[in-house]
Amino acid sequence: MTLNDEEKHQKRMQIKKAMIDEKVAKATEERGVLIVLSGPGKGKSSSGFGTIIRALGHGYKAAVVQFIKGTWDCGERNFIQERCPEVPFIVMGSGFTWETQNKEQDREAAQQAWQQTKVLLQDESIHLVLLDELTYILKYGYIDAEEVYEALRNRPREQSVIITGRGAPVPLKELADTVSMIDDKKHAFRGGIKARKGVEW
Amino acid sequence: MTLNDEEKHQKRMQIKKAMIDEKVAKATEERGVLIVLSGPGKGKSSSGFGTIIRALGHGYKAAVVQFIKGTWDCGERNFIQERCPEVPFIVMGSGFTWETQNKEQDREAAQQAWQQTKVLLQDESIHLVLLDELTYILKYGYIDAEEVYEALRNRPREQSVIITGRGAPVPLKELADTVSMIDDKKHAFRGGIKARKGVEW
Repeated sequence: MTLNDEEKHQKRMQIKKAMIDEKVAKATEERGVLIVLSGPGKGKSSSGFGTIIRALGHGYKAAVVQFIKGTWDCGERNFIQERCPEVPFIVMGSGFTWETQNKEQDREAAQQAWQQTKVLLQDESIHLVLLDELTYILKYGYIDAEEVYEALRNRPREQSVIITGRGAPVPLKELADTVSMIDDKKHAFRGGIKARKGVEW
Repeated sequence: MTLNDEEKHQKRMQIKKAMIDEKVAKATEERGVLIVLSGPGKGKSSSGFGTIIRALGHGYKAAVVQFIKGTWDCGERNFIQERCPEVPFIVMGSGFTWETQNKEQDREAAQQAWQQTKVLLQDESIHLVLLDELTYILKYGYIDAEEVYEALRNRPREQSVIITGRGAPVPLKELADTVSMIDDKKHAFRGGIKARKGVEW
């Protein structure tokens, strides 16, 4: 007996469906997850914000802390603040560290943002918290990494957290349930194209 | 002369700022970009949707085509359709191909979505178009890849396009200005945790 193209496709898809169904059946634990999005490629913060609207789209409460881009014009912040005023949105007061060039000022701003973040990480009503660009704050030592890991471990069981930024520390990745490393294979910027409003920021 | 910690930091940041400023100065071409987000890791579609709200947050017009998740409940679609009714949102009619197991039905649904997509790719008023999960449609040959590349090449100069999905074909990556490959270092699913509503979908 020979199978025609349509039958072959159906058979392949049946096998694929069975494999996927089996994997799905094995994943039974229900709880919030810690997701780390790191690496040099484009897509970390935007993925965090895309997941925020995913949560909102199901009627869940979500919150955002922006640790770095505080002083920059930023489309995703404009959008959430204008259209989703119910979303707690904390912005670290200074800018990128190579813009301010003032360690003390940055450290203070980071500490302030972190104190507000800790409150979010204890709030059972919040389904998803985005800690955008937190890794840089850890890297510069502006907040105590152990204190951060402790707060993440002790958060409400149903709460998920997304942390973005280059150079995620190893203990953070170990603590995480999901780690995506975004590789920069090609970037318009290196091709001489100016960073695009409404795409890059 | 020895520098204290604060001075050292300032000096490092000055050098960093100068390097970044120099790179920024070299990128002078202004036009829309083609971005491909591929690889097995979590974060491709969510990054696409995050960039959609980035564009909207600057007052730009944006559009979405969902090529695969048509029959699934999906937070980001709920959100955009409810809160951003001005965004053209095209959904491919069937579901994941291993759910339908019917090649002809999937091909027809893909063709229909593609015909609507072509109209978006000719619309100068649209700043950003997200073609979510387009790569699977190309992989299964449901639409002609050459026709897709042609439409991408001929789109309005100011329009940016984001294409997501595993297994992006080489010619698509060559055509792209920016390519991020998202690596799956760790996934909650493999750790036995059920896919989380408001995070994974």
